[in-house]
Amino acid sequence: MPFEKVAELAAGWGFNGLEIACWGDHLDVRRAAADDDYVRNRLDVLARHGLKCWAISNHLVGQAVCDHPIDDRHRAILPIHVWGDGDPEGVRRRAAEEMKITAQAARRLGVPTVVGFTGSGIWHTVAMFPPVPAAAIDNGYKDFASRWTGILDAYGESGVRFALEVHPSEIAYDYWTTARALDVIGSHPAFGLNFDPSHMIWQGIDPVTFLLDFRDHILHVDCKDTKMRVDGRTGRLGSHLSWGDPRRGWDFVSAGRGDAPWEAIFRTLNAIGYTGPISIEWEDAGMDRLRGAPEALAFLRQFDFAPPAASFDSAFSAQELK
Amino acid sequence: MPFEKVAELAAGWGFNGLEIACWGDHLDVRRAAADDDYVRNRLDVLARHGLKCWAISNHLVGQAVCDHPIDDRHRAILPIHVWGDGDPEGVRRRAAEEMKITAQAARRLGVPTVVGFTGSGIWHTVAMFPPVPAAAIDNGYKDFASRWTGILDAYGESGVRFALEVHPSEIAYDYWTTARALDVIGSHPAFGLNFDPSHMIWQGIDPVTFLLDFRDHILHVDCKDTKMRVDGRTGRLGSHLSWGDPRRGWDFVSAGRGDAPWEAIFRTLNAIGYTGPISIEWEDAGMDRLRGAPEALAFLRQFDFAPPAASFDSAFSAQELK
Amino acid sequence: MPFEKVAELAAGWGFNGLEIACWGDHLDVRRAAADDDYVRNRLDVLARHGLKCWAISNHLVGQAVCDHPIDDRHRAILPIHVWGDGDPEGVRRRAAEEMKITAQAARRLGVPTVVGFTGSGIWHTVAMFPPVPAAAIDNGYKDFASRWTGILDAYGESGVRFALEVHPSEIAYDYWTTARALDVIGSHPAFGLNFDPSHMIWQGIDPVTFLLDFRDHILHVDCKDTKMRVDGRTGRLGSHLSWGDPRRGWDFVSAGRGDAPWEAIFRTLNAIGYTGPISIEWEDAGMDRLRGAPEALAFLRQFDFAPPAASFDSAFSAQELK
Amino acid sequence: MPFEKVAELAAGWGFNGLEIACWGDHLDVRRAAADDDYVRNRLDVLARHGLKCWAISNHLVGQAVCDHPIDDRHRAILPIHVWGDGDPEGVRRRAAEEMKITAQAARRLGVPTVVGFTGSGIWHTVAMFPPVPAAAIDNGYKDFASRWTGILDAYGESGVRFALEVHPSEIAYDYWTTARALDVIGSHPAFGLNFDPSHMIWQGIDPVTFLLDFRDHILHVDCKDTKMRVDGRTGRLGSHLSWGDPRRGWDFVSAGRGDAPWEAIFRTLNAIGYTGPISIEWEDAGMDRLRGAPEALAFLRQFDFAPPAASFDSAFSAQELK
Amino acid sequence: MPFEKVAELAAGWGFNGLEIACWGDHLDVRRAAADDDYVRNRLDVLARHGLKCWAISNHLVGQAVCDHPIDDRHRAILPIHVWGDGDPEGVRRRAAEEMKITAQAARRLGVPTVVGFTGSGIWHTVAMFPPVPAAAIDNGYKDFASRWTGILDAYGESGVRFALEVHPSEIAYDYWTTARALDVIGSHPAFGLNFDPSHMIWQGIDPVTFLLDFRDHILHVDCKDTKMRVDGRTGRLGSHLSWGDPRRGWDFVSAGRGDAPWEAIFRTLNAIGYTGPISIEWEDAGMDRLRGAPEALAFLRQFDFAPPAASFDSAFSAQELK
Amino acid sequence: MPFEKVAELAAGWGFNGLEIACWGDHLDVRRAAADDDYVRNRLDVLARHGLKCWAISNHLVGQAVCDHPIDDRHRAILPIHVWGDGDPEGVRRRAAEEMKITAQAARRLGVPTVVGFTGSGIWHTVAMFPPVPAAAIDNGYKDFASRWTGILDAYGESGVRFALEVHPSEIAYDYWTTARALDVIGSHPAFGLNFDPSHMIWQGIDPVTFLLDFRDHILHVDCKDTKMRVDGRTGRLGSHLSWGDPRRGWDFVSAGRGDAPWEAIFRTLNAIGYTGPISIEWEDAGMDRLRGAPEALAFLRQFDFAPPAASFDSAFSAQELK
Repeated sequence: MPFEKVAELAAGWGFNGLEIACWGDHLDVRRAAADDDYVRNRLDVLARHGLKCWAISNHLVGQAVCDHPIDDRHRAILPIHVWGDGDPEGVRRRAAEEMKITAQAARRLGVPTVVGFTGSGIWHTVAMFPPVPAAAIDNGYKDFASRWTGILDAYGESGVRFALEVHPSEIAYDYWTTARALDVIGSHPAFGLNFDPSHMIWQGIDPVTFLLDFRDHILHVDCKDTKMRVDGRTGRLGSHLSWGDPRRGWDFVSAGRGDAPWEAIFRTLNAIGYTGPISIEWEDAGMDRLRGAPEALAFLRQFDFAPPAASFDSAFSAQELK
Repeated sequence: MPFEKVAELAAGWGFNGLEIACWGDHLDVRRAAADDDYVRNRLDVLARHGLKCWAISNHLVGQAVCDHPIDDRHRAILPIHVWGDGDPEGVRRRAAEEMKITAQAARRLGVPTVVGFTGSGIWHTVAMFPPVPAAAIDNGYKDFASRWTGILDAYGESGVRFALEVHPSEIAYDYWTTARALDVIGSHPAFGLNFDPSHMIWQGIDPVTFLLDFRDHILHVDCKDTKMRVDGRTGRLGSHLSWGDPRRGWDFVSAGRGDAPWEAIFRTLNAIGYTGPISIEWEDAGMDRLRGAPEALAFLRQFDFAPPAASFDSAFSAQELK
Repeated sequence: MPFEKVAELAAGWGFNGLEIACWGDHLDVRRAAADDDYVRNRLDVLARHGLKCWAISNHLVGQAVCDHPIDDRHRAILPIHVWGDGDPEGVRRRAAEEMKITAQAARRLGVPTVVGFTGSGIWHTVAMFPPVPAAAIDNGYKDFASRWTGILDAYGESGVRFALEVHPSEIAYDYWTTARALDVIGSHPAFGLNFDPSHMIWQGIDPVTFLLDFRDHILHVDCKDTKMRVDGRTGRLGSHLSWGDPRRGWDFVSAGRGDAPWEAIFRTLNAIGYTGPISIEWEDAGMDRLRGAPEALAFLRQFDFAPPAASFDSAFSAQELK
Repeated sequence: MPFEKVAELAAGWGFNGLEIACWGDHLDVRRAAADDDYVRNRLDVLARHGLKCWAISNHLVGQAVCDHPIDDRHRAILPIHVWGDGDPEGVRRRAAEEMKITAQAARRLGVPTVVGFTGSGIWHTVAMFPPVPAAAIDNGYKDFASRWTGILDAYGESGVRFALEVHPSEIAYDYWTTARALDVIGSHPAFGLNFDPSHMIWQGIDPVTFLLDFRDHILHVDCKDTKMRVDGRTGRLGSHLSWGDPRRGWDFVSAGRGDAPWEAIFRTLNAIGYTGPISIEWEDAGMDRLRGAPEALAFLRQFDFAPPAASFDSAFSAQELK
Repeated sequence: MPFEKVAELAAGWGFNGLEIACWGDHLDVRRAAADDDYVRNRLDVLARHGLKCWAISNHLVGQAVCDHPIDDRHRAILPIHVWGDGDPEGVRRRAAEEMKITAQAARRLGVPTVVGFTGSGIWHTVAMFPPVPAAAIDNGYKDFASRWTGILDAYGESGVRFALEVHPSEIAYDYWTTARALDVIGSHPAFGLNFDPSHMIWQGIDPVTFLLDFRDHILHVDCKDTKMRVDGRTGRLGSHLSWGDPRRGWDFVSAGRGDAPWEAIFRTLNAIGYTGPISIEWEDAGMDRLRGAPEALAFLRQFDFAPPAASFDSAFSAQELK
Repeated sequence: MPFEKVAELAAGWGFNGLEIACWGDHLDVRRAAADDDYVRNRLDVLARHGLKCWAISNHLVGQAVCDHPIDDRHRAILPIHVWGDGDPEGVRRRAAEEMKITAQAARRLGVPTVVGFTGSGIWHTVAMFPPVPAAAIDNGYKDFASRWTGILDAYGESGVRFALEVHPSEIAYDYWTTARALDVIGSHPAFGLNFDPSHMIWQGIDPVTFLLDFRDHILHVDCKDTKMRVDGRTGRLGSHLSWGDPRRGWDFVSAGRGDAPWEAIFRTLNAIGYTGPISIEWEDAGMDRLRGAPEALAFLRQFDFAPPAASFDSAFSAQELK
């Protein structure tokens, strides 16, 4: 769906902002990093519909920075100039450069946060067979730290921050891998987290505990939901079945139709003083997004209540439609 | 631990058989396939301790038949002649040949079943990001069928069968992937399943449902257990933490110390008429195996009750100690 | 409530169809099978209110076809000409004839499905005391097959099908009795199932598993709900207490006020390609049906979302008010 | 198994009493009520093995007192003189007489309690379809009261009491039906309850709540266990499947292998001052009773701990083997 | 918030009554007991907004009648003339007198029920360490009976009744303490209970069981909710953390946002024939009450359905806003 | 039971140490602090039975250091010289002095740890009604810090440490109060925790999470168990019912008969490198301790398995019998 159309729809549904994705015609980061007219054009589209932008997202390129193996799945989602000849190490390096350019694009758009993925050199060992020596795991985290420190330095220079979406396939996909990723990246001031509970539900991670313990690192919130279905035949790992297949053990659904404890999440965000953007990421294989997106917005607005001391003014200030 | 020592211990603990592993000094399949003296020697060691053998296991080589990527993890576990120059496709082909030789070894040892792994060309896509087209999944199953049909033909010729241990990293790791693997391999008479509930517990698969629905394909039973620990921070995917770390969401433990419903499993094996071997596979990072193995045997013997119509005579007839 | 009034109310609430019950003044199957004017009159009433009809239901007569014992409970619900002198075998035979006539009525109304009960000659043995020999159970299923095969042949000749509502008191009341009933009736093309999750919830049957495994036999869907209340004193069997008594372990409630997983049910109906009618059967001892019926309709409409590939167009096309 | 053999086995396993069943060659109540030598012979058999008797059980005849329908199931379990010509009302009356004779047999054996069933004229309406008017339920309880008051008077005259085993098929099968049965039978001093938790587990009744609330009516305790297995396909009503079939939702198992909370049960019996007999009723389709009975005794003995004030001396004083 | 303002808001939101609190400027019981003009003024304020009053509440003074220790917490909530010199026994006596005066105030306002607390002389022993002799517990209940019998006599003389809100800190805080409190106060006709499920949820008490068993004593219903959050670190006792802190194990929330089973509660109130007032007590640390109070009213109105026999006419007839 | 008798029994049961209690004739701390012969005598008694001592416990006196109110419950458990005239502040000060003397006694006995309670000035506010200002809570923690800092300094001087048993009635009774207590006492090197899971189970605290997060502060482990019983009438707060009453929501039971996850606890103690003493504190109102204590020892020994790297040598080195 073209960017202009997305903006029109989002505004019509009552959203007051967009988290712009760096793919399709939505945002070309290289143009945005270099071309003032292009930046003005993007901002004009938003302004025309009364929308703002608090974050841009570049998951696809970020994924390639650390990934192993690099294969056709990456070719399908990367810009052609990042894929290049497809040599894995070359792809990783070009992806790292593109992520730095994304920081410049964000700065020029006046956006403080880039949301995205990091990829991982050790994700493919998750089942631990063939056996994985401890040193291989250590090297995976070190590889992440070494590849991303330079990128994050560039973010610091641009005055923006990178928010990793904790997610399977990434260097941090649950509570303890997040703890270790934060540990190895040190206290880099340009690094933080994008909180999306939909990836935690099926892994058994409590989103509220996550928020309480990583409160100082939450830069962005994505609202997507997951519905579990346990019948003794469905499995947590998805059985290589496609989204929407009822034989899966879980599926992504529109926020409010799943098992995420939204009320506790919003009360906790409030309690820990989070005042950043709240995005609705809409992904549901069993529902048309033209129906789902406004429904999710309406659902989440019921939690947008001002607490007695009113510290939550910016809630729902930035929403997006992927 | 040398083969002779394992036999001595197993017999001392009360086991009446061994499932011989095709690694270490336990069993060299190439010698067993070609050298009558070697075969006689292996059988003599067993006989000296009053043990029999109903199955041999060759998980490590089987893993390499379909795997992608092939990397250092495989180098560490493969015989040097299978690894060769490490070229992935070469490794896969040599592993396939070795699995055929394993069938011959089994035949000469008088053993009807080889237990093992198949590897998988699509396991690394389990998180489904980067996005995986349906065709890529289809190709993964086809690759399995094409590589293993030839191997299974060799098994048929040797009069033995191959029992896949349903397990993460393999082409079949849960209920629906097992159903699909059976479907793509057709009704190959030399193919069946090794039932090990420890891999099902943490995925949410009900072992009894599995036994009821795949009753015609169960060739072998491995008894290993898994203990869950859910606290909102532990995750189902293990957090890249090593076995025995209490921050993991689950861990392998000695049979009877975990969450597998052993009594229901044994009553069901009895009800479906299973009369094959029962092996105890002992793996517990928090317990010495010299203590754990005899304890697990004692635990499982309480389920070895003769049903009123006594159809379960061979229970506990073959156990192994890895 | 007179038929005309029901039609008026249903249309006013937004229903677009009626499942006509073959009792009261709603539908006299003998007249409908023989009298064109009567048929035209029924259809006219519907048309006047913009309603269609995709199914008629004749539970009461169907119940008597196999039941044992036949007693005052049946006298109270059967047409006088079916009850006759009350001799049990005579009642069963006349009920069987009436069910054939119902097929003719359906054909003349242009309705493809008759929903109903079968009764059961072995339901009264459900507690298995006094002890029930296996042969007695076998005979119960055979009795069902023999009495209904002739009826179903008549359905086949009329070009309509009979959908058994899986329900306590019937030959099929849960998952495995459904499997066996389908087995003994062979693959009679005029036989299928009416899916009503309210009878499954309190028995512990998963409605989604039921839909997945019997997907080829679902001819009709009835939406009624059940709410469990477990406190250690309430029992699953109802304690001979009347509907609405809070000491019961479960009770029928308006759809959406109970424990049926409606969203998973509708997503699964969609996934298995079900395109037949969806009826709302309203039964709630603690709520006025003038309030409950439109509420249930509104509740269920939230699941009537078009999936991305829009294969669910006829959902909610036929609703009824009993 | 002949009575002498049962006594020998029970004594050998460590039981110190027998609950004698009034069927087989174990006890002929008509002879016991009239023939002193027969009584002496029975007591001699017990004495020879060091056993006592605190209760006799006559479930089979009791069942026929109120049952409807009376059919082949009853013929198979009743003494020939009770069945007679099989006319239902005649069977019921002869069964009532036999239950009075059982009281005399108990008196002459020096046994204070007869354990048994009552049957029920309304059990077959448990599914409440065809609809059951409230008056029909009322009549069922009245029928029980009227048939049993005379029997209980005879018990009172013999100085013994009748303990109804709360059980499906009986007038009292759960908490609230027990409350109503006690209510309609008034405070008849010869009426009480036999507590057997195995029938409560699968109905969702809490055995401890039952003991606390009916503490004044517990005359006897039977230890039998039930194991639930819920997988979304198994049902609470048993699916007309035979005992031991793994597709059932629950099954009887040897005490300690199921879900009854034995420790809480024994602590509560102690706390409410119960000092009567504890019988082990052994019933497990998947286990040989020659193995199961001594195992169950050993299991339950771990709860036979003397409380600090030692008020539980007679625990395990009377056990039986059916 | 001034009384007039509360009345205006409540009426605007759709409430049709107020439960007036005896603190702030809402109600001065000494003036109400003596001054007809004051009474008329209060009633006029209500009438001006179309509101009625079915109950007044005086929790704060009631608390001091039995409490031990009496300390600064009481000073902060008691009228200055009740606190006086703060000598504990003097405070208790003056509080008792004030509760009698409250009865007179209720009578003159035409209100049949005073809702409130009793305090407790033994609550501080709840953890049972240092050890508490049984006699000390007995004395606590006796102290309650002796202090309140005189007060209740005064209520009886005024023709009004006192409804104790079952609540931690009070003589009755759960099921069994309620049973004992009712026992020691005998069958005093002026004593009854105020049902508020929010205090039961976190203690594990089932509100429906409470209603069924204490049905004859329920004089008033307060609707407040509690949300549990269990993560292995949160505790049932609250950790001395303030309301709204996400580290608490539970918190008060607006009715409908918590775990109280409202539908079962309202169906049960209906079934037991309760026709008294339903108040909404609004308390939620994470939500502005200007938003929460009307939301709770709307939420609860969905249960205000007339049952088929319409015996629930006065539901929601009296609501209050604290 | 006299000290000599306890030692004899403990040794006979297989314990290899005693945690000596500072009450009865077991240990007089004032004599032990001053009289070498007395110390030698105590050690001789142990030596005679082959026992060692790794900790002494002085819960009763410690309780009085911070408690409010001080009342008859304290008089009943304090040495007469500590109670004195019973003036609360005087009692607190004398108790503080006695705790310092206990440190000296420990030093002279060669024991590194004193286990005990601290009391609390704010425990009585746990229900938060009457309302408790935040400042009152703050003051409670400050009072603890100020009273205990001096005591702990004396411990430091004696080279021993004080281990607070986290327990209701104490300044730390759950996870978050423990965190705050550790925070306010700073990093006093003489302060640590006694881990006893029985107080955590009924509060919903996960013992394993507690061990992981407070791993650096665990000085001692007490093994006592708690069994929950939830039926909708039992409450978490105990209903002022005595131990052993089946109407309670939970009760202390012998280790292994309750709900504590002992296996996970011992594996975690091992994983965090705990090598201190393991005591069995035996408390079970429904069981004679002459039976319970050796049973608990046998139960816990099954977890005393050496891990592969054998780092747990001193497990079960010190047990006590209270």
